[in-house]
Amino acid sequence: MPDLDHTFAALSDPTRRAILSRLARGEATVMQLAEPFAMTQPAISRHLKVLEGAGLIVRRAEGTRRPCRLAPEGIAAIDQWLGLLREALTRNYDRLDALLAQGLPEKPGLPEKTEETP
Amino acid sequence: MPDLDHTFAALSDPTRRAILSRLARGEATVMQLAEPFAMTQPAISRHLKVLEGAGLIVRRAEGTRRPCRLAPEGIAAIDQWLGLLREALTRNYDRLDALLAQGLPEKPGLPEKTEETP
Repeated sequence: MPDLDHTFAALSDPTRRAILSRLARGEATVMQLAEPFAMTQPAISRHLKVLEGAGLIVRRAEGTRRPCRLAPEGIAAIDQWLGLLREALTRNYDRLDALLAQGLPEKPGLPEKTEETP
Repeated sequence: MPDLDHTFAALSDPTRRAILSRLARGEATVMQLAEPFAMTQPAISRHLKVLEGAGLIVRRAEGTRRPCRLAPEGIAAIDQWLGLLREALTRNYDRLDALLAQGLPEKPGLPEKTEETP
Protein backbone atom coordinates (compact mmCIF):
# COMPACT_ATOMS: atom_id res chain seq x y z
CA MET A 1 0.00 0.00 0.00
CA PRO A 2 1.74 3.19 -1.12
CA ASP A 3 2.01 6.06 1.37
CA LEU A 4 0.08 9.03 -0.02
CA ASP A 5 2.49 11.51 1.64
CA HIS A 6 5.38 10.13 -0.41
CA THR A 7 3.28 9.67 -3.52
CA PHE A 8 2.07 13.28 -3.67
CA ALA A 9 5.51 14.63 -2.66
CA ALA A 10 7.06 12.66 -5.53
CA LEU A 11 4.57 14.25 -7.96
CA SER A 12 5.44 17.80 -6.84
CA ASP A 13 8.58 17.82 -9.00
CA PRO A 14 8.25 18.73 -12.72
CA THR A 15 11.05 16.38 -13.86
CA ARG A 16 9.45 13.45 -12.05
CA ARG A 17 6.07 14.26 -13.63
CA ALA A 18 7.77 14.43 -17.05
CA ILE A 19 9.39 11.03 -16.44
CA LEU A 20 5.96 9.55 -15.63
CA SER A 21 4.49 11.12 -18.79
CA ARG A 22 7.30 9.52 -20.80
CA LEU A 23 6.66 6.14 -19.12
CA ALA A 24 2.97 6.49 -20.00
CA ARG A 25 4.15 5.89 -23.59
CA GLY A 26 5.91 2.67 -22.55
CA GLU A 27 8.74 1.10 -20.60
CA ALA A 28 12.12 2.88 -20.70
CA THR A 29 15.66 2.51 -19.39
CA VAL A 30 17.61 5.17 -17.46
CA MET A 31 19.58 5.89 -20.65
CA GLN A 32 16.41 6.38 -22.69
CA LEU A 33 14.96 8.63 -19.98
CA ALA A 34 18.14 10.73 -19.57
CA GLU A 35 18.31 11.72 -23.25
CA PRO A 36 15.27 14.02 -23.69
CA PHE A 37 15.78 15.64 -20.27
CA ALA A 38 19.42 16.69 -20.90
CA MET A 39 20.21 15.34 -17.44
CA THR A 40 22.96 12.99 -16.31
CA GLN A 41 22.05 9.37 -15.68
CA PRO A 42 22.83 9.68 -11.93
CA ALA A 43 20.41 12.63 -11.69
CA ILE A 44 17.69 10.62 -13.45
CA SER A 45 18.47 7.63 -11.22
CA ARG A 46 17.87 9.72 -8.12
CA HIS A 47 14.46 10.78 -9.44
CA LEU A 48 13.64 7.15 -10.31
CA LYS A 49 14.53 6.10 -6.77
CA VAL A 50 12.01 8.64 -5.40
CA LEU A 51 9.32 7.48 -7.85
CA GLU A 52 10.00 3.82 -6.98
CA GLY A 53 9.88 4.56 -3.23
CA ALA A 54 6.57 6.36 -3.76
CA GLY A 55 5.12 3.29 -5.49
CA LEU A 56 4.63 5.12 -8.80
CA ILE A 57 7.04 3.04 -10.91
CA VAL A 58 8.42 -0.48 -10.86
CA ARG A 59 11.71 -1.71 -12.30
CA ARG A 60 12.66 -5.12 -13.57
CA ALA A 61 16.03 -6.69 -14.25
CA GLU A 62 16.89 -7.49 -17.87
CA GLY A 63 20.56 -8.44 -17.94
CA THR A 64 22.42 -5.32 -16.83
CA ARG A 65 19.49 -3.02 -17.74
CA ARG A 66 16.72 -2.13 -15.31
CA PRO A 67 13.82 -0.79 -17.40
CA CYS A 68 11.11 1.20 -15.60
CA ARG A 69 7.38 1.30 -16.09
CA LEU A 70 4.36 2.84 -14.40
CA ALA A 71 3.03 1.04 -11.29
CA PRO A 72 -0.75 0.68 -11.63
CA GLU A 73 -1.27 0.31 -7.84
CA GLY A 74 0.38 3.62 -6.95
CA ILE A 75 -1.57 5.51 -9.60
CA ALA A 76 -4.80 3.79 -8.55
CA ALA A 77 -4.20 4.86 -4.91
CA ILE A 78 -4.01 8.58 -5.69
CA ASP A 79 -6.80 8.24 -8.21
CA GLN A 80 -9.04 6.69 -5.56
CA TRP A 81 -8.28 9.45 -3.08
CA LEU A 82 -8.98 12.14 -5.70
CA GLY A 83 -12.19 10.36 -6.59
CA LEU A 84 -13.69 11.38 -3.24
CA LEU A 85 -13.14 15.08 -4.00
CA ARG A 86 -14.36 14.65 -7.57
CA GLU A 87 -17.60 13.04 -6.37
CA ALA A 88 -18.12 15.79 -3.78
CA LEU A 89 -17.81 18.47 -6.44
CA THR A 90 -20.27 16.65 -8.72
CA ARG A 91 -22.77 16.33 -5.85
CA ASN A 92 -22.46 20.07 -5.08
CA TYR A 93 -23.12 20.95 -8.71
CA ASP A 94 -26.13 18.63 -8.81
CA ARG A 95 -27.52 20.23 -5.63
CA LEU A 96 -27.07 23.70 -7.10
CA ASP A 97 -28.72 22.61 -10.37
CA ALA A 98 -31.69 21.22 -8.43
CA LEU A 99 -32.12 24.47 -6.47
CA LEU A 100 -31.85 26.59 -9.60
CA ALA A 101 -34.42 24.37 -11.33
CA GLN A 102 -36.80 25.11 -8.43
CA GLY A 103 -36.30 28.82 -9.06
CA LEU A 104 -34.67 29.51 -5.70
CA PRO A 105 -32.19 32.37 -5.60
CA GLU A 106 -28.58 31.26 -5.95
CA LYS A 107 -26.51 31.77 -2.83
CA PRO A 108 -22.81 30.91 -2.65
CA GLY A 109 -21.94 28.12 -0.26
CA LEU A 110 -25.56 27.06 0.24
CA PRO A 111 -25.41 26.58 4.04
CA GLU A 112 -27.94 24.05 5.22
CA LYS A 113 -28.85 26.11 8.28
CA THR A 114 -28.30 29.84 8.82
CA GLU A 115 -28.54 31.76 12.05
CA GLU A 116 -31.29 34.32 11.81
CA THR A 117 -31.01 37.81 13.22
CA PRO A 118 -34.08 38.47 15.39
CA MET B 1 -4.10 28.14 -13.72
CA PRO B 2 -2.83 26.36 -10.60
CA ASP B 3 0.85 25.35 -10.48
CA LEU B 4 1.03 21.54 -10.26
CA ASP B 5 4.25 21.71 -8.19
CA HIS B 6 2.42 23.57 -5.44
CA THR B 7 -0.77 21.55 -5.82
CA PHE B 8 0.91 18.18 -5.37
CA ALA B 9 3.18 19.50 -2.58
CA ALA B 10 0.08 20.74 -0.73
CA LEU B 11 -1.47 17.26 -1.00
CA SER B 12 1.61 15.55 0.51
CA ASP B 13 0.51 16.50 4.04
CA PRO B 14 -2.02 14.25 5.86
CA THR B 15 -3.70 17.14 7.74
CA ARG B 16 -4.23 19.06 4.52
CA ARG B 17 -5.71 15.97 2.85
CA ALA B 18 -8.01 15.52 5.88
CA ILE B 19 -9.12 19.16 5.60
CA LEU B 20 -9.99 18.61 1.94
CA SER B 21 -11.92 15.44 2.82
CA ARG B 22 -13.86 17.45 5.40
CA LEU B 23 -14.57 20.21 2.83
CA ALA B 24 -15.81 17.53 0.42
CA ARG B 25 -18.79 17.29 2.82
CA GLY B 26 -19.43 21.04 2.54
CA GLU B 27 -18.17 24.53 3.30
CA ALA B 28 -16.56 25.10 6.73
CA THR B 29 -14.99 27.87 8.79
CA VAL B 30 -11.57 27.73 10.45
CA MET B 31 -13.30 27.12 13.78
CA GLN B 32 -15.31 24.20 12.40
CA LEU B 33 -12.16 22.74 10.82
CA ALA B 34 -10.00 23.15 13.95
CA GLU B 35 -12.37 21.13 16.18
CA PRO B 36 -12.03 17.55 14.85
CA PHE B 37 -8.29 17.93 14.26
CA ALA B 38 -7.45 18.99 17.83
CA MET B 39 -5.28 21.73 16.35
CA THR B 40 -5.15 25.42 17.12
CA GLN B 41 -6.87 27.81 14.74
CA PRO B 42 -3.54 29.44 13.73
CA ALA B 43 -2.17 25.98 12.82
CA ILE B 44 -5.26 25.27 10.69
CA SER B 45 -5.01 28.76 9.15
CA ARG B 46 -1.46 28.03 8.02
CA HIS B 47 -2.62 24.83 6.30
CA LEU B 48 -5.52 26.72 4.69
CA LYS B 49 -3.09 29.32 3.34
CA VAL B 50 -1.09 26.54 1.65
CA LEU B 51 -4.25 24.97 0.21
CA GLU B 52 -5.48 28.35 -1.04
CA GLY B 53 -2.08 29.15 -2.61
CA ALA B 54 -2.17 25.76 -4.33
CA GLY B 55 -5.57 26.54 -5.85
CA LEU B 56 -7.28 23.68 -3.99
CA ILE B 57 -9.66 25.77 -1.87
CA VAL B 58 -11.32 29.18 -2.11
CA ARG B 59 -12.49 31.40 0.74
CA ARG B 60 -15.24 33.97 0.80
CA ALA B 61 -16.00 36.79 3.22
CA GLU B 62 -19.17 36.50 5.30
CA GLY B 63 -18.99 39.26 7.91
CA THR B 64 -15.96 38.41 10.04
CA ARG B 65 -15.99 34.73 9.00
CA ARG B 66 -14.13 33.42 5.99
CA PRO B 67 -15.65 30.02 5.15
CA CYS B 68 -13.64 27.69 2.89
CA ARG B 69 -14.73 25.33 0.18
CA LEU B 70 -13.11 23.10 -2.45
CA ALA B 71 -11.90 24.85 -5.63
CA PRO B 72 -13.15 22.85 -8.63
CA GLU B 73 -10.44 24.25 -10.96
CA GLY B 74 -7.51 23.08 -8.81
CA ILE B 75 -8.95 19.61 -8.43
CA ALA B 76 -9.74 19.44 -12.15
CA ALA B 77 -6.12 20.35 -12.97
CA ILE B 78 -4.59 17.43 -11.05
CA ASP B 79 -7.36 15.15 -12.24
CA GLN B 80 -6.58 16.03 -15.85
CA TRP B 81 -2.87 15.36 -15.37
CA LEU B 82 -3.59 12.01 -13.69
CA GLY B 83 -5.98 11.17 -16.52
CA LEU B 84 -3.01 10.84 -18.90
CA LEU B 85 -1.41 8.15 -16.71
CA ARG B 86 -4.74 6.42 -16.18
CA GLU B 87 -5.37 6.23 -19.94
CA ALA B 88 -1.86 4.90 -20.53
CA LEU B 89 -2.41 2.10 -18.02
CA THR B 90 -5.77 1.20 -19.58
CA ARG B 91 -4.15 1.08 -23.05
CA ASN B 92 -1.38 -1.21 -21.75
CA TYR B 93 -3.91 -3.60 -20.22
CA ASP B 94 -5.93 -3.64 -23.45
CA ARG B 95 -2.78 -4.40 -25.45
CA LEU B 96 -1.87 -7.23 -23.08
CA ASP B 97 -5.43 -8.60 -23.23
CA ALA B 98 -5.31 -8.57 -27.03
CA LEU B 99 -2.00 -10.45 -27.07
CA LEU B 100 -3.19 -13.01 -24.55
CA ALA B 101 -6.38 -13.51 -26.59
CA GLN B 102 -4.15 -14.34 -29.59
CA GLY B 103 -2.39 -16.97 -27.49
CA LEU B 104 0.98 -15.27 -27.59
CA PRO B 105 3.27 -15.82 -24.61
CA GLU B 106 3.06 -13.04 -22.02
CA LYS B 107 6.22 -10.96 -21.76
CA PRO B 108 6.59 -8.19 -19.19
CA GLY B 109 7.07 -4.73 -20.61
CA LEU B 110 6.22 -5.77 -24.18
CA PRO B 111 8.95 -3.73 -25.90
CA GLU B 112 7.94 -2.79 -29.43
CA LYS B 113 11.45 -3.33 -30.81
CA THR B 114 14.31 -5.28 -29.24
CA GLU B 115 17.94 -5.25 -30.30
CA GLU B 116 18.95 -8.66 -31.51
CA THR B 117 22.28 -10.24 -30.75
CA PRO B 118 23.83 -11.44 -34.02
